[in-house]
Amino acid sequence: MLMPMVVPAQLWQETGRWDKYGKELLRIKDRHDTDFCLGPTHEEVITDLVRDELKSYKQLPVTLYQIQTKFRDEVRPRFGLMRCREFGMKDAYSFHLDAACLDQMYQKMSDAYHRIFTRCGLSFRQINADNGSMGGSDSSEFMVTAKTGEDEICDCSSCGFAGNQEILVEDCCPQCQGKLTRVRGIEVGHIFKLGDTYTQAMGVTVLTHTGSSDVVTMGCYGIGIGRTVAAAIEQHHDDKGIKWPMALAPYRVDVIITAMKNNALVNAATRFFETGNANGVECILDDRNESVGVKFKDAELIGFPYQVIFGRLWVAEQKVEVVFRMTGEKQELSVQDAMTVVSKAGMV
Amino acid sequence: MLMPMVVPAQLWQETGRWDKYGKELLRIKDRHDTDFCLGPTHEEVITDLVRDELKSYKQLPVTLYQIQTKFRDEVRPRFGLMRCREFGMKDAYSFHLDAACLDQMYQKMSDAYHRIFTRCGLSFRQINADNGSMGGSDSSEFMVTAKTGEDEICDCSSCGFAGNQEILVEDCCPQCQGKLTRVRGIEVGHIFKLGDTYTQAMGVTVLTHTGSSDVVTMGCYGIGIGRTVAAAIEQHHDDKGIKWPMALAPYRVDVIITAMKNNALVNAATRFFETGNANGVECILDDRNESVGVKFKDAELIGFPYQVIFGRLWVAEQKVEVVFRMTGEKQELSVQDAMTVVSKAGMV
Repeated sequence: MLMPMVVPAQLWQETGRWDKYGKELLRIKDRHDTDFCLGPTHEEVITDLVRDELKSYKQLPVTLYQIQTKFRDEVRPRFGLMRCREFGMKDAYSFHLDAACLDQMYQKMSDAYHRIFTRCGLSFRQINADNGSMGGSDSSEFMVTAKTGEDEICDCSSCGFAGNQEILVEDCCPQCQGKLTRVRGIEVGHIFKLGDTYTQAMGVTVLTHTGSSDVVTMGCYGIGIGRTVAAAIEQHHDDKGIKWPMALAPYRVDVIITAMKNNALVNAATRFFETGNANGVECILDDRNESVGVKFKDAELIGFPYQVIFGRLWVAEQKVEVVFRMTGEKQELSVQDAMTVVSKAGMV
Repeated sequence: MLMPMVVPAQLWQETGRWDKYGKELLRIKDRHDTDFCLGPTHEEVITDLVRDELKSYKQLPVTLYQIQTKFRDEVRPRFGLMRCREFGMKDAYSFHLDAACLDQMYQKMSDAYHRIFTRCGLSFRQINADNGSMGGSDSSEFMVTAKTGEDEICDCSSCGFAGNQEILVEDCCPQCQGKLTRVRGIEVGHIFKLGDTYTQAMGVTVLTHTGSSDVVTMGCYGIGIGRTVAAAIEQHHDDKGIKWPMALAPYRVDVIITAMKNNALVNAATRFFETGNANGVECILDDRNESVGVKFKDAELIGFPYQVIFGRLWVAEQKVEVVFRMTGEKQELSVQDAMTVVSKAGMV
């Protein structure tokens, strides 16, 4: 679904967050002098929507999500995409009859987040976190390790345990007594057990099996989209540019033509480009009238996972050079073998 | 690209629109008491972005676009998705060295809009329009004919000419003198030749072939996304619900199982559903424990282009019933023939 970005103050007043939330909440008035805010998170909106829809336990559990631009009036926006006032977020909200069902969904989401961040090629830690202004009981942050990270986390190399600032006073791992290392992290995801904080305040009840009325239990789950991309770049780059993990790359293959005046070469490269795209391998064709040097530099800067180069080698032997940006590995292959290599799925 | 939705007032002050624009422009102040607005349209933002990037005529023409939520503080939001304060818009902006080049792009966009709205199954008219608060010279609106439309348009059944209110005083077609009919329309697209209105005010110049400096010429092109969908529903529905045109349908095929207790039937339907999705035919499977009546009613209400019904006919003869929602046509087909029918592309 897609929820509104301009949210009536009245909803935030119902949960008490209108007064509690700090200056990050950008408050506005419309032409009728009615109070609104730019949504920094959407618990109130989704809770308002479901309270009219949910009547019976039979409708539970239900999970709804959106991908939307959010706004937080940060004191100091900085680090490019890391801390913006406007940012893209995937936010999901789940509703349950009881805590046990919420626990199951929370675990499913945790597993899904592990798969998502792994697929994005990220090295990350999951740590228990404070629910803060969100309310509720448990919450868990997904932190990508990076020198430029805004948060400090503790990491146990022995058992894999990770924790936030609260355990920084301890010298050793609370799980295995192993040595703790301090690393910096970027928060890319956060999942919360909200319990009945919002549903109680806003009156979301359903009829249970026995005919009684019960307050619904809630969870919420967010991924910072721009931040995830920025974190991937932090972890995967060199002095020449980005090294995109496969799942995040704008295009998987940069098909480079080294001599635009050689028609046979241009045709062969164009055929490769078209065949790739027709078979689900996203290719871009560098057929600009630029020097080879410019084309190679741009390929490395933008960081496409593969470069497939149609040049002298093709003219001499009908072969192409395939460069894997992540490792720098180079292979000389027939056109057909090159297509097989770049088509391989799942490779980070 | 994706531009910001919260836009600095300073940019709107440069073009003079900060003072000229009415109350639809929602003006806000951030925590530092700096003026911003919620972007109702993005000429200033894109012009600000390109003035730092464009240096030479060699970079022209260039067209940039985004799909973004916009905000207009309407006096009376109404008609569901027709007149919302928040709405999804595709907005494109083109930059050129001269008017001739802009004319070409304007024509290309006009042609593309015709193809888009035709593919969306819409009956529409293109009419010359007033540039209004946008500035510039020519502009052209794409109006979907619908009784609920907010605008009145004149339509010539003889030559196909259509015009807006300005020619309502005339009795006959200015092109062929044929009879004019008044119809109501919903604006779904608008294309503008902006000329140098924004580029002059904001100082976007490039070096020309001769080494002189020249102000860039600009066009902009918008499609209201929610409105296009709402207009399609206006034109394609009956008292049972929506009849989605193929290109707009959330799913092409609703695979309905009439008896959830018949395992063979459930398996056959599930196989059809999976095969369809694996081959790019978007299917949804109605495997709910609901009565056949409820399933049929929901299928008609939501308006999937095809229903493929696995019921008695499959049990008796291994055949399915295929219902085409747009016309009501029903066919009894083998499972294989049914797949062939629903796979046909391009059918509105």
